[in-house]
Amino acid sequence: MYNLTKFKIIKPANEVFEAFADPEKIKNFWFSSSSRWEQGNTVKLRYDEYNAEVDIDVIEVQPNKKIMFRWGTEGEGNIVTISLEEVDPSITIIEITEEGFKEDDNDLISHLLDNKEGWVYMLTCLKGYLEFGINQLRGAIVK
Amino acid sequence: MYNLTKFKIIKPANEVFEAFADPEKIKNFWFSSSSRWEQGNTVKLRYDEYNAEVDIDVIEVQPNKKIMFRWGTEGEGNIVTISLEEVDPSITIIEITEEGFKEDDNDLISHLLDNKEGWVYMLTCLKGYLEFGINQLRGAIVK
Repeated sequence: MYNLTKFKIIKPANEVFEAFADPEKIKNFWFSSSSRWEQGNTVKLRYDEYNAEVDIDVIEVQPNKKIMFRWGTEGEGNIVTISLEEVDPSITIIEITEEGFKEDDNDLISHLLDNKEGWVYMLTCLKGYLEFGINQLRGAIVK
Repeated sequence: MYNLTKFKIIKPANEVFEAFADPEKIKNFWFSSSSRWEQGNTVKLRYDEYNAEVDIDVIEVQPNKKIMFRWGTEGEGNIVTISLEEVDPSITIIEITEEGFKEDDNDLISHLLDNKEGWVYMLTCLKGYLEFGINQLRGAIVK
């Protein structure tokens, strides 16, 4: 089982890529990040509004094209692939796939729904930040 | 089965209510609406970017508190309840519940996920519109 979300950002791919990789940028629409996202790095992510913290292993980075990471450092977490396709010099289609949901999980549906909620929310916050400079859409989902 | 999404908007409840009820407002973050949302009305909604059109039956309206509607006019569509709670004079918690998903539907999970995607996306666009005056977050989900 996996979740896929696809979204249009009216910015070049390098700006979308840097929004994730650069700790000064990612905190404006998603997590605070302990360091730059580079292949092989372990990065600590914090979302203060939800008192959430997680380490990720950055498995693969292709600048301006692809970031693959695993939630957690024990080799057991889901794998996320962020793919960027610059369909026009000013338009990027970003596709996010999260894989690793277990079909025999009794709470599979609620895990998938929470996961989908998170990705759609983050992507809309990313659009607000990159296209309109707004960093205050974050932290509004009530759990 | 149902989907529930809860979201914080930093505006009074009457502004959040009017954003849905007033055709001049709702088109800025969601559908274009053929008329004001009043109890007993049938309203035609259009989302041009997705070439989507649907009639809804507005079942119940409690100004600044609650809107309940049914997708479709044949009495068979899912029922949506939008509840507003003004937790502070400038903060409203909006809760959206959609009910009517069939547990024996072979595509239940993908229907629930598409539905969750739509609600989270709309609510983030609503926040961008009401708090920051942005009406260009719409239409970015790629199907």
